[in-house]
Amino acid sequence: MFSQVIECIPNFSEGKDSAKLQRIIAPFYQDEQIRVLDYSLDADHNRAVVTVIGTYEGLKRTVPCVIGLAQQEIDLRVHRGAHPRMGATDVCPFVPIRNTDMETCIQLAREVAEIVAADYKIPVFLYEKSATSPERENLARIRKGEFEGMKEKMLADEWKPDFGPGQPHETAGVTAIGARMPLIAYNINLGTSELKIADEIARKVRFVGGGLRFVKAMGVVLERRNIVQVSMNLTDYTKSSLYQVMELVRAEAKRYGVPVVGSEIVGLSPLAALLDAASYYLQLEDFGLDQVIESRLLDAE
Amino acid sequence: MFSQVIECIPNFSEGKDSAKLQRIIAPFYQDEQIRVLDYSLDADHNRAVVTVIGTYEGLKRTVPCVIGLAQQEIDLRVHRGAHPRMGATDVCPFVPIRNTDMETCIQLAREVAEIVAADYKIPVFLYEKSATSPERENLARIRKGEFEGMKEKMLADEWKPDFGPGQPHETAGVTAIGARMPLIAYNINLGTSELKIADEIARKVRFVGGGLRFVKAMGVVLERRNIVQVSMNLTDYTKSSLYQVMELVRAEAKRYGVPVVGSEIVGLSPLAALLDAASYYLQLEDFGLDQVIESRLLDAE
Repeated sequence: MFSQVIECIPNFSEGKDSAKLQRIIAPFYQDEQIRVLDYSLDADHNRAVVTVIGTYEGLKRTVPCVIGLAQQEIDLRVHRGAHPRMGATDVCPFVPIRNTDMETCIQLAREVAEIVAADYKIPVFLYEKSATSPERENLARIRKGEFEGMKEKMLADEWKPDFGPGQPHETAGVTAIGARMPLIAYNINLGTSELKIADEIARKVRFVGGGLRFVKAMGVVLERRNIVQVSMNLTDYTKSSLYQVMELVRAEAKRYGVPVVGSEIVGLSPLAALLDAASYYLQLEDFGLDQVIESRLLDAE
Repeated sequence: MFSQVIECIPNFSEGKDSAKLQRIIAPFYQDEQIRVLDYSLDADHNRAVVTVIGTYEGLKRTVPCVIGLAQQEIDLRVHRGAHPRMGATDVCPFVPIRNTDMETCIQLAREVAEIVAADYKIPVFLYEKSATSPERENLARIRKGEFEGMKEKMLADEWKPDFGPGQPHETAGVTAIGARMPLIAYNINLGTSELKIADEIARKVRFVGGGLRFVKAMGVVLERRNIVQVSMNLTDYTKSSLYQVMELVRAEAKRYGVPVVGSEIVGLSPLAALLDAASYYLQLEDFGLDQVIESRLLDAE
């Protein structure tokens, strides 16, 4: 494996045509410093999410090519889907995983944004940790108005892009590029079918309701199982921990006499987030990542 | 990293002379299919423990050389130390870690044993999962009598070695080689200074006392902290789990009104053992190793 590992998760506005997606992401397969970990198309959302890992140099040379291919393949003027979107490549985050840091990812996002704007004339907004102003940290706020409303939105001085032309690309719209922490999708299942209870608990554990700073949460019905779920995103597991989330939800559920019947991590999680939970519950003193054999294997190269 | 990973942890009867140990293990550093993860010398025990990982082929060609060098460097006739021992290389286990299995390690142990016996005239006993009879599974039973008593012990038919001469090597004694599961050294600290309580709890959780099948345990005093500890070895964490051990010790400690104040994993642990604990306490449904980013990195080569 490469000594340095950065994750990149571009989201494309194409969720139906798998062959088209393959043409777009072909450069990822050809670069020896990139590995494709996962990709999925969602037809309802008409959107694809691709997860790759690579080195700084590998991503810097490959990601702009891929965004260029998405521009060729996708025409937002005829794109319809349930998920909000503003560009052919809608958003492209860089995430520090191993032997790298947030500063490096912020720098990489900036360099990629510059190349994309110069080579493909696509306006780019830097977001999350790369944002150049507080109102650009939140992707939803940048994307508000979507492809169709972007032309008018960008007339305002405050919505001039960080790189590229002052108007959206005719077919490829605009793209958000930035650096962020790994995101963990964590859901806790409750032994009740009452959505109201999951909603109430979600309200108490999430940041906006006075809960944990790096937790977003909402109640969801799992119809097939006839139960409800507190569905969450942990946006910084190093600060708001899996075990804190579990213990807070459990405590809140007690108010309703409702048991926690299970939980799930959707997609990938960093090792450290899980070790943090093991460490808390086992009351481990001074346990280090370097005590995990697999972690040593990664360093052994 | 190599696609297949086997761990090997040779124990040498030299715990004081670090330069001598370096001469013995030099071949590990020269083989491109081997990485040295760790080594430690214990002067009181007069013993060194070395941890390496490698491929089947790398270990097959290198481990016999290292055992040959230990034979040249160590003379058991003048060796004194607190730890029981019977050979210059006292014991050498092979442990399946990634993309390999116990059968493969059993085969490797056998091939290495054959080479060691042929090239260095050292008698070898196969032990643990490699044992050719039940009484040879337990290392302590093979080693009983130690270097000084081995000559007489081996006169008996039942203690003929699996490979090599029927008598111990004059200076290097005999060596045990075998395959085993990864071993986890797990200690739980109690909020009391009474050794009797740690001893009683150890008795209840360990296999010989009717406790968990793959747990060895004893009570230990931590003098500097003025507390006691249940000190354990988990010999198969896939069957007797970390969380089971913790919950059983906690339950038993309640009998004495004693709290668990912490725990520690000494040395290395496989990722799966820790995920198993995280998974239990977080009540994760269907969580897989392949959801851990670092695990995907290892597969990405």
